[in-house]
Amino acid sequence: MPKLVLIRHGQSAWNLENRFTGWWDVDVTEKGAAEAKAAGELMAAKGLDFDLTFTSLQTRAIKTLNLALEAMGRLWLPTEKHWRLNERHYGGLTGLNKAETAAKHGEEQVHIWRRSFDIPPPVADAGGPYDLSKDRRYAGIDIPATESLKDTIARVLPYWEERIAPALKDGQRVLISAHGNSLRALVKHLSNIPDDEITSLEIPTGQPIVYDLDDDLRALDRYYLSER
Amino acid sequence: MPKLVLIRHGQSAWNLENRFTGWWDVDVTEKGAAEAKAAGELMAAKGLDFDLTFTSLQTRAIKTLNLALEAMGRLWLPTEKHWRLNERHYGGLTGLNKAETAAKHGEEQVHIWRRSFDIPPPVADAGGPYDLSKDRRYAGIDIPATESLKDTIARVLPYWEERIAPALKDGQRVLISAHGNSLRALVKHLSNIPDDEITSLEIPTGQPIVYDLDDDLRALDRYYLSER
Repeated sequence: MPKLVLIRHGQSAWNLENRFTGWWDVDVTEKGAAEAKAAGELMAAKGLDFDLTFTSLQTRAIKTLNLALEAMGRLWLPTEKHWRLNERHYGGLTGLNKAETAAKHGEEQVHIWRRSFDIPPPVADAGGPYDLSKDRRYAGIDIPATESLKDTIARVLPYWEERIAPALKDGQRVLISAHGNSLRALVKHLSNIPDDEITSLEIPTGQPIVYDLDDDLRALDRYYLSER
Repeated sequence: MPKLVLIRHGQSAWNLENRFTGWWDVDVTEKGAAEAKAAGELMAAKGLDFDLTFTSLQTRAIKTLNLALEAMGRLWLPTEKHWRLNERHYGGLTGLNKAETAAKHGEEQVHIWRRSFDIPPPVADAGGPYDLSKDRRYAGIDIPATESLKDTIARVLPYWEERIAPALKDGQRVLISAHGNSLRALVKHLSNIPDDEITSLEIPTGQPIVYDLDDDLRALDRYYLSER
């Protein structure tokens, strides 16, 4: 039975400050690092093991993966890193905290951007402080100027289909360390969650989510590892 | 001009205790982790950058790579991990410290094993405390029972030829984090060092070694980054 585990990165500095982070490369906090280590210890204690691991190009997800793997004695597992697993790009909201965003755009508008499925925030300023066009890691990639959750899903799923699903069908046990919205994309796909429900599905940091899948990668069960 | 940097893992717990380690998976010490971080800071300060990284399947080399990359803001670089970059397998000496080895085999014999090019130590005991035959990371691999430096070179070079050299010829800047003897294999090959000299060439922990190469990957220059 194919086995997949998803883990959202441990708390980041901007999670803590309640800032829109998106593609900006913010590190995990000490608490976030501890969450990652605890996730690895939990997976080892529950007898989970993996053959292949995936993560984004963002430090907080990569470090979460590395810390969890280290706690499992599995740093030697192969890892593929890909921008398609990055967090949703929050466009012009990047770097703003809750209060700043509300002051600038109004509470109601912010709520719409946070909770709508297909309305993207305003585009990022080219040349602004969070412009990533000169970041070498994204060379050759059309960096989004902003993304709705729908947009995020649309760029996550091709990677799922091309790299992750074939590995699972091939019998490999897979661990993915990624972000709130790139993981929502996968959970929506695997658990058939409607558009208007997925936006409010919270994915907690550092909590391994286990999928038992059938051979066609349909979800038989989904649960937090800490609850079994 | 193809650019290659080699780094030996930071100090490990058994480096400190002067034990033969080989394929046994010993972690870096705090000092070793600090060496790795300092190496990354030095590489960033000197303007070195990479496109592709390689390491062994051993925790001390992987962690050294990860800590150095993190210090450079380059955790997102792709990494290939392969057993052919592992340390020399010390066979039946694995786990013994200097005094234990001398007491068991005599000083002179130990000196021969340490310094000869092609005389391997006694084979490891099957089922002994350092038997790796049940370690999943080596499934499908003929784990050596012991290795001379010559044996180590013979299994490192095919990986160089197959994976690393083509990447360098393709214009990728390469960082390799590995071990005293797997790096000796590469240095011997690149710098044409004779059999009787390579055994005494010391590769210090945590010190980036830079190779400037020509298009046929002949060494134009080799130096410690800290000295330029």
